[in-house]
Amino acid sequence: MQMDNKKRLVAITMPNEKDLEVMEETIATLKSFGIPYEVTIISAHRCPEQMFEYIKSASHRGIEVIIATASGAAHLPGMIAALTTLPVIAVPLKSPFLDGLDSVLSMLQMPNGVPVATVSVNGAKNAAILACQIIALHDDNAKHEMERLKATLVHEVEEQSKRVRSNFA
Amino acid sequence: MQMDNKKRLVAITMPNEKDLEVMEETIATLKSFGIPYEVTIISAHRCPEQMFEYIKSASHRGIEVIIATASGAAHLPGMIAALTTLPVIAVPLKSPFLDGLDSVLSMLQMPNGVPVATVSVNGAKNAAILACQIIALHDDNAKHEMERLKATLVHEVEEQSKRVRSNFA
Amino acid sequence: MQMDNKKRLVAITMPNEKDLEVMEETIATLKSFGIPYEVTIISAHRCPEQMFEYIKSASHRGIEVIIATASGAAHLPGMIAALTTLPVIAVPLKSPFLDGLDSVLSMLQMPNGVPVATVSVNGAKNAAILACQIIALHDDNAKHEMERLKATLVHEVEEQSKRVRSNFA
Amino acid sequence: MQMDNKKRLVAITMPNEKDLEVMEETIATLKSFGIPYEVTIISAHRCPEQMFEYIKSASHRGIEVIIATASGAAHLPGMIAALTTLPVIAVPLKSPFLDGLDSVLSMLQMPNGVPVATVSVNGAKNAAILACQIIALHDDNAKHEMERLKATLVHEVEEQSKRVRSNFA
Amino acid sequence: MQMDNKKRLVAITMPNEKDLEVMEETIATLKSFGIPYEVTIISAHRCPEQMFEYIKSASHRGIEVIIATASGAAHLPGMIAALTTLPVIAVPLKSPFLDGLDSVLSMLQMPNGVPVATVSVNGAKNAAILACQIIALHDDNAKHEMERLKATLVHEVEEQSKRVRSNFA
Amino acid sequence: MQMDNKKRLVAITMPNEKDLEVMEETIATLKSFGIPYEVTIISAHRCPEQMFEYIKSASHRGIEVIIATASGAAHLPGMIAALTTLPVIAVPLKSPFLDGLDSVLSMLQMPNGVPVATVSVNGAKNAAILACQIIALHDDNAKHEMERLKATLVHEVEEQSKRVRSNFA
Amino acid sequence: MQMDNKKRLVAITMPNEKDLEVMEETIATLKSFGIPYEVTIISAHRCPEQMFEYIKSASHRGIEVIIATASGAAHLPGMIAALTTLPVIAVPLKSPFLDGLDSVLSMLQMPNGVPVATVSVNGAKNAAILACQIIALHDDNAKHEMERLKATLVHEVEEQSKRVRSNFA
Amino acid sequence: MQMDNKKRLVAITMPNEKDLEVMEETIATLKSFGIPYEVTIISAHRCPEQMFEYIKSASHRGIEVIIATASGAAHLPGMIAALTTLPVIAVPLKSPFLDGLDSVLSMLQMPNGVPVATVSVNGAKNAAILACQIIALHDDNAKHEMERLKATLVHEVEEQSKRVRSNFA
Repeated sequence: MQMDNKKRLVAITMPNEKDLEVMEETIATLKSFGIPYEVTIISAHRCPEQMFEYIKSASHRGIEVIIATASGAAHLPGMIAALTTLPVIAVPLKSPFLDGLDSVLSMLQMPNGVPVATVSVNGAKNAAILACQIIALHDDNAKHEMERLKATLVHEVEEQSKRVRSNFA
Repeated sequence: MQMDNKKRLVAITMPNEKDLEVMEETIATLKSFGIPYEVTIISAHRCPEQMFEYIKSASHRGIEVIIATASGAAHLPGMIAALTTLPVIAVPLKSPFLDGLDSVLSMLQMPNGVPVATVSVNGAKNAAILACQIIALHDDNAKHEMERLKATLVHEVEEQSKRVRSNFA
Repeated sequence: MQMDNKKRLVAITMPNEKDLEVMEETIATLKSFGIPYEVTIISAHRCPEQMFEYIKSASHRGIEVIIATASGAAHLPGMIAALTTLPVIAVPLKSPFLDGLDSVLSMLQMPNGVPVATVSVNGAKNAAILACQIIALHDDNAKHEMERLKATLVHEVEEQSKRVRSNFA
Repeated sequence: MQMDNKKRLVAITMPNEKDLEVMEETIATLKSFGIPYEVTIISAHRCPEQMFEYIKSASHRGIEVIIATASGAAHLPGMIAALTTLPVIAVPLKSPFLDGLDSVLSMLQMPNGVPVATVSVNGAKNAAILACQIIALHDDNAKHEMERLKATLVHEVEEQSKRVRSNFA
Repeated sequence: MQMDNKKRLVAITMPNEKDLEVMEETIATLKSFGIPYEVTIISAHRCPEQMFEYIKSASHRGIEVIIATASGAAHLPGMIAALTTLPVIAVPLKSPFLDGLDSVLSMLQMPNGVPVATVSVNGAKNAAILACQIIALHDDNAKHEMERLKATLVHEVEEQSKRVRSNFA
Repeated sequence: MQMDNKKRLVAITMPNEKDLEVMEETIATLKSFGIPYEVTIISAHRCPEQMFEYIKSASHRGIEVIIATASGAAHLPGMIAALTTLPVIAVPLKSPFLDGLDSVLSMLQMPNGVPVATVSVNGAKNAAILACQIIALHDDNAKHEMERLKATLVHEVEEQSKRVRSNFA
Repeated sequence: MQMDNKKRLVAITMPNEKDLEVMEETIATLKSFGIPYEVTIISAHRCPEQMFEYIKSASHRGIEVIIATASGAAHLPGMIAALTTLPVIAVPLKSPFLDGLDSVLSMLQMPNGVPVATVSVNGAKNAAILACQIIALHDDNAKHEMERLKATLVHEVEEQSKRVRSNFA
Repeated sequence: MQMDNKKRLVAITMPNEKDLEVMEETIATLKSFGIPYEVTIISAHRCPEQMFEYIKSASHRGIEVIIATASGAAHLPGMIAALTTLPVIAVPLKSPFLDGLDSVLSMLQMPNGVPVATVSVNGAKNAAILACQIIALHDDNAKHEMERLKATLVHEVEEQSKRVRSNFA
């Protein structure tokens, strides 16, 4: 699994190509913020040794935040956190069992010493925003994006409210 | 709620003095890492206006990460995230209802645009470590502490394993 | 968010325009009771300051009951209750996670001092009826409507029973 | 079940004498607000006919709000709501099964037409406050009490915050 | 709600005409066993007084078993059991919330003194069989039907097994 | 497993001697009703062949109702129901996992054709009452006991209500 | 239920023909590994005596592993384990109630002395792999298949990763 | 982590010394069966590289079955299964959250290709028995032990039944 030498800040990892259905929102959001990222299919269960290598190399290549998703007995974010000191953001996927309660608990309940930052079920967009908030602590562009996002959120609600008020006046 | 001018990196917030039973581990852990912090009792439900002011001032005074805990209909971390662009780490407290499932879901399931980074139920220590991992991206002391932590974790397991193997040989 | 000066008794609030799919039943029910209401899109997470202002102004303009809905980490009803002494009725929306268990627990489990009156999942109609029952304590039209509703419920069951009995005699 | 003719505003009902362990907080809170109340043991399952009579008489004697609690298959609040047009506040008791999830769902999930206002598990205090908020819509003393309560909540947090800040400065 | 004087053994009750979608299997099963029954729409919440009358009259007219279904805060079977000493069989309907966990818990968790016999979620057929097993204790036709049912169950499995074995030999 | 020839109406079965802690209430209640019973330790998992024999013999010896309890993967009531056409009442025991949700679901969710009548978690008393209600359909003593029980329930509530009213007048 | 004398290593059992929708993956997987198997419809609830006979005969005919599936109150794997000393692998089917939580708990929570090896909900493929891992302890072909499977898993991830990297480079 | 060269058949692994409180029953049970075993403290999260080495070496040293336990986000059994083709038996520990539902789901819901054999919550004894059942397929001593165990289970029930029958005759 060779990577080129371009400097990227966020590694987006997932165990299955089809997880892109959810995670493409992470990619699109980071892209909209202008934050460089890389996307990798990597599995704690199916290729543990390749996962080890990839995480070690990612940390050394300048990656600052790792976003990992998984479903069911969702070990990928926790195993990445076991292998790095970088902050790891976990996106529990909505699985076919109890809407992803299995994914949530497999990520949330990490033992002392090895935290992951869990966001909402299928929270692909929030994972990107949280990564950007972390990077924004020492990156002015990211900080600017976060302030712009806040303004957008307010604007959206105000637009909706106007429409609704005129409809129900 | 005046704060002096000392530079602190982490704000630890909780709605009740008695939450310190759990959260003193966050305090002790940050202290052991040498990361300056402040501790505040603040409630989204009982003093929403004071909470607004505190969060606005905290962001301006150089705080980099906010750790918030709560129990039951646990709105504090989410409301803080609504008021700042800093990363917010949420510690769901074990409540008297379903071991804190109410706390977990009130934090985890934040809507698009306003993430919080949820750690495990009563995960006070992991909240401190996650805060330190974030700070470590641009702070060499914090980075060093995170590497030392990894070594400690390995050492502890090895010590336990030796004891167990000699007992069950 | 300017409102005109018409006297309204119930404020219906929700964080997203699309919540109207469920909440239009609240609107229709209040309308059928002849109780004046206003409808507003307002979000605790995306525009907290605007929410503060709106709730303060609603209380002062003569609103008597506030109905609030939300989904997931559903903080809107609780935050409104934090900002007013008016009774707040909460409608937990059926979310994509465990049929809205997240919405329910985020509303139901409010701490001592700040109650909300939670109705059933997607209970948009019952929210309107509960608001009317409260207003009926000092409003004869509302009281009359509530008595008429009881008669209607009995009548509906009797009509159904007749049909079923003749089918299965 | 004769009651004297004193005017009372709130009826507090529960199926077992031992429910007073939780519900005495409702009583104490209403007393502290100066709101007249009556307390009755009444059971939907064990004495349904007596329950019918009591609720009918309570409505006619000037009761404005009925607070009902129960545990397990908790039918009392719903059956009271079936028999009156007064607002009914339901307190789900923490039962021995899943911390009272049975009590919660038996109350919360009332069908269209017959709402109850459910508060938190064991939320005996909040039931009293919600009753007072409803009465406050046309009772100046109750309104004053609700404003005083808000001030108390703020004060309590500020006192706690001072103590904590001086301990962790 | 007048009933004619034909002797019926089982009363099938439900709060909504549309519950027939599930409960017509109860009707068809009792019919196939040759057990006389009546079907009634009756609601604990919407017409409590009519329910009282119907249950009292059913007990006096020779009904031996009452089957009741409901959904959500499902109080009908429990309220019937409160009003009669006949055995009451409860069918929890699959509701839109947690697949009917609300229906199940509202029925299953009846307090001491007032049992209901709960069958599986949407267990309309099993309710009829259980009613027949009870009647079979003193009715030879019902007993014969129950023995025939056992034989049918064995036969069905054997037929399926033969087909499968020949397909996968 | 020989039984003497005394005529008994109810067989109480459980897989472990220690289940008597809960089930002695079934025994005491049947005794108070004057209904003859037998008590047997029998396990679907640990002695399936002995269970087969016992159930076959019980059915032939005149037993009319079988009460079975179990915990966890609680198969005893369902397996008894597979082996007899008598009505089987199931008491789910409060297990160490989710307060007995495993016991409940293992009993409640029986497939079409093989019903069991499930009562509440640890509902040992209600199992006895339900058995008595079934026997009362053709036994005047049992019928009399059920009517007496109803009167007792009303009396108990009235006594409690008097005490509470005089305390809170 | 006669079986011919061919030596088979795995018995695949299920209570309904329609369970093949899920379990045909078990069959296909064992076939791909070259492990001889037999498929039987057998029900603990509907034909308990035939189940007894089949399990006894299977054990004597050289079957080494029994795979059993079921849904709801899913007793088949546990009852098989009660009747044999062979390892029993249980596949909980996704049922219409809580996505098969009933199936899971009915299998997982077996009492001391009678284990079953539960795999994931609808884990038909994993049941076959686990059976093969067990057989591989003393069968070189099975062992070789397990090693080949590991290589396949790695290869699949690498292929996906390549595609994804080129798409998001 | 050096091991001596004694031939052992079962590796018992756990992430914390204190897990021995539960797992000493696995040890005692294997000892009583005369099956040689080794006990190791090993953590997927705290020392992932040491875990890799240990599992690789265990497979090569003749271990036939690996028993792994864990709590919360319980990744150890799944990660072991990722690293070996041996059968892995998983014991979900009763954790402080929902009695170990987190442990159960983190183990049970493994993805296709990487099964683990999950036993009951705290099912330490059953893990040992399942391991013995697997070994018994090609080991006469283990087979004999499994037959003896079945006889013991029957005997225990019969002894209890005798005591109970004489007490309640």
